[in-house]
Amino acid sequence: MKVAVLGFGTVGQGVYEMLRHARGLEPGAVLVRPGKDDAAYKVTDITAITGDPTVGAVVEVLGGIEPARTWVEQALLAGKHVVTANKALVAECGPELANLAREKGVAFLFSAACGGGVPFLHNLALSTQSDEILTVGGILNGTTNYMLDAMQSRGADYAEVLKDAQQLGYAEADPTADVSGLDALRKIMLACAVAFEKLPAQGLYNEGIQNLTAADVKHFQSLGYTCRLVAKGGPVADTVFAFVEPTLVPASAAECAVKDNYNLARYEAKCAGDIVLMGQGAGRFPTASAVLRDLSDVVSGQRVMMPENCARVTADCSGCGHPYYVRLPEAFAGMLPCDKVTVADGVARVITKSVTVKEMHDTVAALRDKGAQVFFAGIEE
Amino acid sequence: MKVAVLGFGTVGQGVYEMLRHARGLEPGAVLVRPGKDDAAYKVTDITAITGDPTVGAVVEVLGGIEPARTWVEQALLAGKHVVTANKALVAECGPELANLAREKGVAFLFSAACGGGVPFLHNLALSTQSDEILTVGGILNGTTNYMLDAMQSRGADYAEVLKDAQQLGYAEADPTADVSGLDALRKIMLACAVAFEKLPAQGLYNEGIQNLTAADVKHFQSLGYTCRLVAKGGPVADTVFAFVEPTLVPASAAECAVKDNYNLARYEAKCAGDIVLMGQGAGRFPTASAVLRDLSDVVSGQRVMMPENCARVTADCSGCGHPYYVRLPEAFAGMLPCDKVTVADGVARVITKSVTVKEMHDTVAALRDKGAQVFFAGIEE
Repeated sequence: MKVAVLGFGTVGQGVYEMLRHARGLEPGAVLVRPGKDDAAYKVTDITAITGDPTVGAVVEVLGGIEPARTWVEQALLAGKHVVTANKALVAECGPELANLAREKGVAFLFSAACGGGVPFLHNLALSTQSDEILTVGGILNGTTNYMLDAMQSRGADYAEVLKDAQQLGYAEADPTADVSGLDALRKIMLACAVAFEKLPAQGLYNEGIQNLTAADVKHFQSLGYTCRLVAKGGPVADTVFAFVEPTLVPASAAECAVKDNYNLARYEAKCAGDIVLMGQGAGRFPTASAVLRDLSDVVSGQRVMMPENCARVTADCSGCGHPYYVRLPEAFAGMLPCDKVTVADGVARVITKSVTVKEMHDTVAALRDKGAQVFFAGIEE
Repeated sequence: MKVAVLGFGTVGQGVYEMLRHARGLEPGAVLVRPGKDDAAYKVTDITAITGDPTVGAVVEVLGGIEPARTWVEQALLAGKHVVTANKALVAECGPELANLAREKGVAFLFSAACGGGVPFLHNLALSTQSDEILTVGGILNGTTNYMLDAMQSRGADYAEVLKDAQQLGYAEADPTADVSGLDALRKIMLACAVAFEKLPAQGLYNEGIQNLTAADVKHFQSLGYTCRLVAKGGPVADTVFAFVEPTLVPASAAECAVKDNYNLARYEAKCAGDIVLMGQGAGRFPTASAVLRDLSDVVSGQRVMMPENCARVTADCSGCGHPYYVRLPEAFAGMLPCDKVTVADGVARVITKSVTVKEMHDTVAALRDKGAQVFFAGIEE
C-alpha cells in the first residue's frame, strides 16, 4: 500500500524513512509548505494526494487543528485510510473524523497521539472488544518525566532542569503545554474515548509541575515517595472522570522505574487485570514506529479506533479522591482538611485527609486567586 | 463468529465465559473427555467441531502435545481458525502448524502461550512488520516470580515459599517445569520464532531457582540487587541466542517492580526503542483474555503469528556474556574467573568477571557432576 505523508518535520521524516523498509508498505508523496518542495516526492497541494488513486493511506503529522483537520477530512472523503499522530486534532475533532471514516469504510487510527512508541491505544482498543476496561492512566508526558526524574536524582531546581530539557530538545521554547499537564490531559481524553466510548471535553482538571521546588522534592523524598506527573481516567455513572496531577508514588510502584523521558501507560481490565506498558513516549523513530504499527493494522484490516458515535461528555471528578501533599503559605493551611502539617519559615507542608480531585483542584484555584503560592500532588495509596 | 473450545479446564472455562460477552464472537461446542459431557454444548468427538460449518474458529487449551496436535491439525485442515494457549505444542510443532494454517488461509495465533494476559507476542508480531527487533526477554514465569518475591520480601527459604505457591494454586504438585526455568524457556523460544523467524530447538540453556537459599538472598540484598528469573533471546549471525537464568537486577530496574506472580516482557526494536509490558502472566481470566484478543484479531483479519517457513535452529549462547554471582563450595571457586570472593564456613560467594552464558552454564554442569552444590545468577549491568 502506498502511503502519503502530510508534514515533514521530525516525525514525518521518521515515518518516511520507516516506510521505505516496512513490509507491504511504500512511501508516496509528502505534502510540505510551498518553497519546501525541493524533491520529486514533495508536493504542496493536498489534491495531488487525494486525487492520486495509487495512494491507499495518508499519515497526518502536521500537528495543530488547521490545516490538519481540513486535509484529513479531504483524505477520508477521497476514500483514503488515515493514520494521525496529532493529539490536539483527535481530542478536538476525533468523533466526527471517526464517524466520517466509518461512513467511507476506511481506517482512522491514532496510536501515535497517545504514548508515542508505547503501544497504548492499540492494546486498549483491542481489549475493549472482549473485556471491560475499568481504569486508564499513566505517565503520558516524557518532557515532564525527564524534568521530575532530573530534579529527584540530582536535587536540581525547576528552572535548571527546564533549561536542560530545552537544550536536549525534550521541551519546546514555550513549554506550557507540557509542564501544565495539558499535553497529558489531551492524551487521557483520547484514552477515555477509546476505552469508555466517551470523550471528556469539559469538567477536566490538570495540574502541572511549574510550582514544584527542590525543597518539595527533598520533603517527599524524606517520606519515601517519588513524584511523577500522572493522568487518570475511568467511568463514573453516565460520564467519566479524567485528570492530570503530580502524584507521589511509593518506591515499589512501576512508575518509579520510569526514567528520563520515558512514558508508562496502564489500564485495568475486568478479565485481563492490570496491564502496564512502558517505552519511549516521543521522538522521531519511536513516534514513527507507532504510526507504522497503525499502518500494519490498516493492511491487516483494522478500521476505526474510536467507538461509533463516541459522545462528548462533561467529566465528573467529584467522586474520586485520595490524600494530597500541599505546600502553601502557613496562613492558608486552615483551608485544607489537614492530617499532618509541618511548618517552617511561614511555609506549611500538609498531608491532607482524602479529598476529591474536584475539591482539591478547586480549592487550590481559590487559594491562587488570593495570591497564595501553592504546589500540590496526589498521594498514591 | 462461533468459536469451539478444546478443553474445559481453568482456562477453557474462562474462555467460554468471556465468549458469551465478547463483541462479534459467540461460544460453540466444547470438547471434553467422555464422561465429562454433562451439558448440551459439550461434545467428546473432534468431528462434531471440525464437521460443523457454523464453527469459524477453534480455541485449544488442552495443554501437552497429544491429542492437542492431532486435533489442531484436523481443525486447520477443516478450514477453522485456531487460537491456542499451549506453549509446549507451539514450541514443538509451531512451524508446521503455522505453515498448514497459511496453506489453508486460516489464522494460527498463540498470544496466550507466552506471557498470559501480558500482550507480548501480539505486539512483537506487529512490530516485526515495520521495525527490526533487536532483543526479546523478561520475567515470563509467574510461579517463580511469586517465590522469588516472597523469599526476598519475607526472608523465607525455598521450601517454605514453594509450599505457599502450591497452596495458592500458583505451583503444580510437580513444580519442575516452573522452578527449573523450562516453562520460561519454552516461552522465549516462541518469542524468538515470532521476532527473528527462527525457532531455537537445541543449544538452549536454562537454570532455575531450585538451589536458591535464604542466605543467597541475604547476600545479594546486601549488594543492592533483586533476583528475578529472566529469559533472554536475540539474533546472532544466522541463529539466535536464548537462555533462562536467575538474574540480579539493580533497584532501578523495571523488573524490581514486578511483584507476586506478575510477568514482565520486554523487547527492544530499532525504531521504537525499549518496550516493556507488565501484567498477569497466568490465571483463568488473564490467560483467557489473551485468547479473546487473538480471536478479535482473527475477526479483524490477522492471520499467522509465526513467520513463513520459520526455521528450527541450534541456539548459540557463546557470544553473549556478563558477570555472575556464584555460590559454591570453597574448594571449587578456583574453577571460576573470580573478580570478588567472600568465604565463610567453607562456602564461597563469587562475583565473576564477564563470562559467556555457554561457558558459565557448562562450567556449573561440570561442577555439579563433581557433586558440588551450586547456585548462580547473572548480574545485570
